[in-house]
Parts: sequence; structure tokens; C-alpha cells
Amino acid sequence: MGMRGVSIIGVGTTPYGILKNQTIKAMAVTACNEAIKDAGIDRKQIEAFYLGNYISGMIIGQETLAPLIAGGICLNKEISCTKVEGACSSASIALRQGYLLVASGLYDIVLVAGVEKMSSASTEKITASLGASIDMETEGLTGLTFPGFWALMARRHMYEFGTTIEQIGMVAVKNHKNGALNPRARFRNIISLEDVMNSKMITDPLKLYDCCPISDGASAAVLCSSEIAKEFSDKPIDIIGSAQTTGYSTLFEQAQEVSLPATILAAKQAFEMAGIMPGDVDLAEIHDCFSPAEIADSEDLGFFEKGKGGWAVQDGLTRVDGKLPINPSGGLLCKGHPVGATGLGQVYEVVRQLRHEHENQVKGAEIGLTHNAGGTGAVCTVHILRRR
Amino acid sequence: MGMRGVSIIGVGTTPYGILKNQTIKAMAVTACNEAIKDAGIDRKQIEAFYLGNYISGMIIGQETLAPLIAGGICLNKEISCTKVEGACSSASIALRQGYLLVASGLYDIVLVAGVEKMSSASTEKITASLGASIDMETEGLTGLTFPGFWALMARRHMYEFGTTIEQIGMVAVKNHKNGALNPRARFRNIISLEDVMNSKMITDPLKLYDCCPISDGASAAVLCSSEIAKEFSDKPIDIIGSAQTTGYSTLFEQAQEVSLPATILAAKQAFEMAGIMPGDVDLAEIHDCFSPAEIADSEDLGFFEKGKGGWAVQDGLTRVDGKLPINPSGGLLCKGHPVGATGLGQVYEVVRQLRHEHENQVKGAEIGLTHNAGGTGAVCTVHILRRR
Repeated sequence: MGMRGVSIIGVGTTPYGILKNQTIKAMAVTACNEAIKDAGIDRKQIEAFYLGNYISGMIIGQETLAPLIAGGICLNKEISCTKVEGACSSASIALRQGYLLVASGLYDIVLVAGVEKMSSASTEKITASLGASIDMETEGLTGLTFPGFWALMARRHMYEFGTTIEQIGMVAVKNHKNGALNPRARFRNIISLEDVMNSKMITDPLKLYDCCPISDGASAAVLCSSEIAKEFSDKPIDIIGSAQTTGYSTLFEQAQEVSLPATILAAKQAFEMAGIMPGDVDLAEIHDCFSPAEIADSEDLGFFEKGKGGWAVQDGLTRVDGKLPINPSGGLLCKGHPVGATGLGQVYEVVRQLRHEHENQVKGAEIGLTHNAGGTGAVCTVHILRRR
Repeated sequence: MGMRGVSIIGVGTTPYGILKNQTIKAMAVTACNEAIKDAGIDRKQIEAFYLGNYISGMIIGQETLAPLIAGGICLNKEISCTKVEGACSSASIALRQGYLLVASGLYDIVLVAGVEKMSSASTEKITASLGASIDMETEGLTGLTFPGFWALMARRHMYEFGTTIEQIGMVAVKNHKNGALNPRARFRNIISLEDVMNSKMITDPLKLYDCCPISDGASAAVLCSSEIAKEFSDKPIDIIGSAQTTGYSTLFEQAQEVSLPATILAAKQAFEMAGIMPGDVDLAEIHDCFSPAEIADSEDLGFFEKGKGGWAVQDGLTRVDGKLPINPSGGLLCKGHPVGATGLGQVYEVVRQLRHEHENQVKGAEIGLTHNAGGTGAVCTVHILRRR
């Protein structure tokens, strides 16, 4: 069927970090209210609400968040408020659902948000919670967790393509340099490659700085049909590509250990829909939950040939002034990764970039891409946004 | 916008009960495979998958279920597989999302399912998990749980309308009589009012038989556009009403303690959409998580005047041979309540009724209704199905 255009007319977010005095509801309400204000809509115009959250049940014992948060922002009771979950892709799945309902013509204005409260839980609980997206009937039983997953991916990438530990570490260095300029980032410190190499070994070859930090945060966006977007915003950002695909819930099922097949599929779908090539993208916020993930993702998304991602980092191609700036926000590694919020946090950053009002602005950015890989790549999302 | 018709062409389910040797994945795969087979489709024709689940994270430490189960049933990797959560409404939210995407014309064939594995967890864990849909920042802190919630509702209903403890108990008696005929029901025993009255006091005035049992189970349905439904099924069942509304995450916020406002809203929307009146419904599977819930729901849905629900039970109006048979499957009280599956379990029963092949058949049934109240009525759903 014919789909109509969908635009982002408002975004809001909390900073990402250890937000000690903010409850999960407070964070989500803050981000949603900011997005509603930014959009210049009356909240009673919102026709549906989708909320991404991964693991509030296991971490803080709170479920059924969508109506709870809808109550906090006084949405109409006549509308549906739905929580969606797909591990690290949860918020971008909320975006995707909202996108579909506006694109199909069912609704004109939809609010989407994501939230996660992680810092209040013990390390043990966090580890179990994050691991819960691996198939616990099979690979989960082996004790594999995500640092291990990405360490194995990194080792295989090094073996296959000669990617070096230093190249992997340079991802963290670059993303910290970016994050230092981003007031929403959890870390604001510039680090050297030596700092990365000397940081604590977590899972060989991943050091502490190669791993994203546990964070709290919430992000939100208001979507509307492109036809009416200009009524609300001088700078609507159009969603020109949207894809959500399915991968594997284990490492052993993947055909290889250097790619996430669902990312490859999602990128293909999103680029076809947008009618552009990877080379047309001006910046990308992609899923660097661990340093090697950014390298693998940058290849799977089509920005670099498979195996060349490490060299792209080394050659500075992914710096903010490079050929394809990746994670100018600081990425998950430095900005932080409140799991259920991250996808919309990326959208927040890209929208600011495409409005040309970002603190770490990519000059003249017209097209931006966001990407998440949920769990072991079990559910991957790609969205492509364009300035009008 | 114009919406097109959506039909159910296949249903599948596990029995509800203590399914000791079945994992959550196995149960969901069983229900989905049965629905796919019943629909007579090739699984590669499925264009999207929505899965309802409430609390697998807290109960069994497994999240990101949608792609996991999609892998088990070999769905295409190109499609999106999305978990939705809204407490006891989770499965009917999955139905609602699938409905919207087919109705809008985006997809022709969508699989929806719901699953919950509860029996393997300790009572303490189950209590915490079920309670997690109450706002834990406010009312959850008081220690209120769902037996308490419905006990308070029952007491207020008795105070306001003179509803009797015996009328409340008669709901359990009726639903056990129904469930005794249903091979999918957890309990198959007929009970007397005396049995209910003499059963263990749980939360005054609710006795053991007034509370639904912890259960495992999964249910699924295949949806397709009504235009092509006859290509697959001789007896497609049309979805003529669908609504999902938002309520309150606490008891104290509700204006009164004898109604769930979100149920009233959802019923209004669904009946308007279907263009029928409550009196046109031939049978209803509604959310009797506790006996008084069936009474309050039957009023909120418009079947009986507010305050008359208890008398309707006493007068036999809701028996399988009554004016409006309610829960001929046995309902949550007797059939069981695997939280994230229940909504589609109800759909399974109603589809069998409307095909005229149910074990406890309502004679000549043409129109059936399903209803769920998630948590404290925070998210309510109503669906109206019709035989062609």
C-alpha cells in the first residue's frame, strides 16, 4: 500500500548517566514533556503512545510502564499506550511502531519514548538482566554474557581481517572525544589510546573503556504526518527509512562471528526505502555497546567493506570531521546506554544534528542514520532521517 | 482514514495449567504452529509477528522473547517481531497491534501470540511479579496486591449495590461448571457454592475459589485482511470491533471503586466501531481474574446496569444457556490465567464458539466479545468478533 511521509517535530531527553534522584517515571515524564514542548503540540492531540523499555521488571520491579508514564504526562485515556521490548532496540521499536501507524494514515500525531533505570541495581542483578536477552534455554546456560559475546566477535574479526586491538581501542578514544562536547553524555573526559590499553581487562580483548557504562536515562520524540509537520515545526526532520528485522538469540546460530545478519537486512531495507546509498549519509549514531560492535556495525550497515571497519577508524574516517562521522554524540560507550532509551537518544542527537544545533555539529549534515542491535542481534533497527 | 476488514483465519493454543515439561519457548511454538496450521498458510507468508508477554523477565529471567520464539517457528528474518506488554492485557495488545497493521493495509497476514510461564517460580516471586503492574512509587509501597485490589472493589460493590458474597461466589461456581467441559481448562471439577464459601479465606471477602490460579500457557492467532480470508479459511471470523484504552496504575486514582474506567471507554469504542449494542453479543470471555471482577466488568462492558451484575449471575443470565453467556470457557478462574497469554486464549475460545465447534457451545452464537483489564485497569482491551 502507499505510505505517507512521517516527520519528527519534537524531541526531548534527560542527560544519560547516574540520575540518582530521578525515578523511572520522573525521567520518562521529563523526556516526554520536553518533546511535547519542542513539538509545540497540545498533549491532547497525541493519538497513541509507544514506550520502549527493556528490563524495568527485573531491575526495579516495575512493569506496565506505558500507562503509568502516560498518566504522568496526562495523555488522553481514550488512546492506547503500549510498551514494546526488544532489548537494546526497545526505543527504536517504539519509534518504528509509531512510524508505521502514522505512515499508514491511522494517526496523525504519535508520541514515542524510551526509558531505563539501571544504576540503582546491584552489578549481579544488572548482569543477569542484560544477559536475559540471550536464549536462556541454550547459550545462556553456558554463562555467556555480552562482554563475552563481543569479545568473541572481536577476536574473530581480528583473526579474519587483521583488525588490531589498537583499532578497537581507537573507537573508545574517538567516542570519548565526541562525548566530551556533549552535555548529555555520561562521561565528559578525553582519553588516550594508552588509557584504553591500560584500563582493566574485562573480557579479553575488551578493556574497561571498550564497554559501555550502566546508565539511567529517557528520551522521546513526537511524530506526525509530513503533510502537517510544518504547522508545528520550522525544522521538521523526515523519516525517510525505517526497518526492524529479526536475527538470532544466540551466537552459535549466527553463520559467522563478524556480522549481525539482522543489521545487514535492516540496513538493506532502510536504504532501499529511503532511495539512498550508505555513502549519502552524513552522520550515523550506531550501536557501539562495545568498541568492536561499532566496527562490525559500520561494515554491516554498508559504510565500509567487511573487514575494513578497523582501518576506517584508524584513518580517522569516522571522526566528526571525517568522511562519515560515527557517534558524534559520544555513542553508547561515552554518552551511556540506558538500554530501553538508547534508540531514541540517538534520534535526539541526530535530530539536533540535522537541525544544525548540535554541540558537536557535523558541518552541513543533511542525512543521519540511527542503528540498534538488540541483544545478540536478535532484533535490529535502522532509521534514516533527513533535513528538509 | 478508511480501515479495511480484518479476519482471524487460524487459532492455536496449549492447554492452560501446570505444564511442567514445557519451556516458555516450547509452549509459544506449539500455539503458533497450531495457529499457522489451522490457517492453512505457509509461515513464510507471515509479514509481522507480535507477542504478548507480561513477566518472563522477573519470573524466569528470559526477555526479548519475540525474536526467540520467531526463531523457533522459522519466521522470515526480514520481518519485525515485537514483544508488547500491558500486564494481563498483553496478548490482546498483540492482537490489537496486528489488527491495526492489517486494517491499515500495511500487511496482509500477521501472526499474534501470547505466552506466560508461571508455575516454575516461587509464590513469593509470583506475588512480586504480579504486583509489579501497580505503581511501585506510590500504591505499590503500601503492599497492595491484586487479591487486595479486588477485595476492596468487591466490598465497595457490596456496600453500594447490595451485591452479596453469595453472588460473588456464584461466579466461581458457574465458571467451574463451564470449565469442566473445556479440555483446555486447568480445573475440570464442578464446585458448589458451599465449596466456595468453605474454601480458604485469601483476602476478605475473597476465598480461594474467587481467585484465578497461577498457570502456564500460550495462545496464538493468524490475522489476515477480510478480502482474502476466504482463500484460507471456510470459517473466517471477522474482527468487527477493537479497542485499547488507558486507565490508572493505582486504585486511589480511580474515581470510584466499582468500575474500571478504561474498560468502560474500551467497550464504548469497540461497540461504536462494530455498530452493535451490548445486547447483540451472544457470548463474552471477560477478565474474571477474581470473581468480583467478572461482575464489575459485565457492568462496565454495558451488559448489565451498574450494580446489577451480581443479580445477573444469581438469576442465571450469564450461564451458557442464559441471556448472555459469560466465560463459557471457564474463564480465568477455572480455565487459568497465564497472564501474557490470556487475551488470545479468550480469542481461541470465542473463535471456536463462532465456528460452532466449542465443547461448551453457545447455541447459534454469531457475535462474541473478549475483554482484558491489565493490572489495576491501567490498560484495557475489548475485541468483538463475528461469524460471517
